[in-house]
Amino acid sequence: MASRKTSILEAAARVIARRGVRGLRVEELASEAGVSTALIYYHFKDRTGVLRQTLEFISDRAERYTTDRDAGAPPATPREELEQTLLLELQDTAVVRENSTAWGELRASAVFDETLREDLARATRVWVQEVAELLGGVRPMSPAVALAGAAERLTALLEGLSTRWLSGSLPLAHARTLMTEAIDAEVARLGA
Amino acid sequence: MASRKTSILEAAARVIARRGVRGLRVEELASEAGVSTALIYYHFKDRTGVLRQTLEFISDRAERYTTDRDAGAPPATPREELEQTLLLELQDTAVVRENSTAWGELRASAVFDETLREDLARATRVWVQEVAELLGGVRPMSPAVALAGAAERLTALLEGLSTRWLSGSLPLAHARTLMTEAIDAEVARLGA
Repeated sequence: MASRKTSILEAAARVIARRGVRGLRVEELASEAGVSTALIYYHFKDRTGVLRQTLEFISDRAERYTTDRDAGAPPATPREELEQTLLLELQDTAVVRENSTAWGELRASAVFDETLREDLARATRVWVQEVAELLGGVRPMSPAVALAGAAERLTALLEGLSTRWLSGSLPLAHARTLMTEAIDAEVARLGA
Repeated sequence: MASRKTSILEAAARVIARRGVRGLRVEELASEAGVSTALIYYHFKDRTGVLRQTLEFISDRAERYTTDRDAGAPPATPREELEQTLLLELQDTAVVRENSTAWGELRASAVFDETLREDLARATRVWVQEVAELLGGVRPMSPAVALAGAAERLTALLEGLSTRWLSGSLPLAHARTLMTEAIDAEVARLGA
């Protein structure tokens, strides 16, 4: 069973995905999570503390659902692992939709509010580093700087495609095709 | 001199870039533009009308500043034209920062509010088509579907990089390098 703190973070991700970061008030979060506002202040100090930890929570959750493998499945090749990690962010499931919406909202709100910028930059670096390592598995002879650049592009493209999908400008199946072709182009660019 | 309607649209772009779409109220827009709320309702019918026409206004403005050439400059090659069009969206000038912030906000708000989705999808298609034509100048033998895919990726990447830049996760100079390398990768993928 999830701890009380985890339940609050799950509720915060739901509220942000439904109404945006700017729609998140501590009173509503308490009501959504079925706890008192005092408990929220106890665990998170203030609204900024809630937002910071929600950012970490949704990053961790994305890492979980993009790295889960079926127990009985044959081991994935590095290329399959890379594709799976990126394409699992483009799925029409409740958790991916909620996670991507909340991530996009935290990103968009950081344009106006400097509070979250440092945490967001750190979470972005961690994500880029993970994708760079997967690219390194596909192209082991590539220099680190080339892998990092390709990872920055693939993750920034994923953010762009995801926001287009969620805002109704791009069908999901086509977003997945575009992402797969981008992986092709970057892997080709890294050479053998 | 700009018409009264244009002044209102300029003021709307400023307000959205400063406080977000959700911070735009007709009363504040009237005060920012130095006009009456009645004049705003006369020109735009309602707040949705303001948002729709602001979206068109910032798309047109982006097209202007990305296609302006110095009168005395030698004609650009197709590749230079393509790079210039995309890289001019990654400049630290007041108008580009304001335009990109407002565009990102309209995109982000469409995730929650369906009203703008159709206009946004149309503006996205127009932009993709322009970039596809520039790519066709660089690679005239490429099939239209390949050009369109590359244009969708380059413009979605630009949105992703631009939001990372504006939210403090990516230095501008590095965003420009990443964009230039993406153009290389896509042009290489299109072949000769």
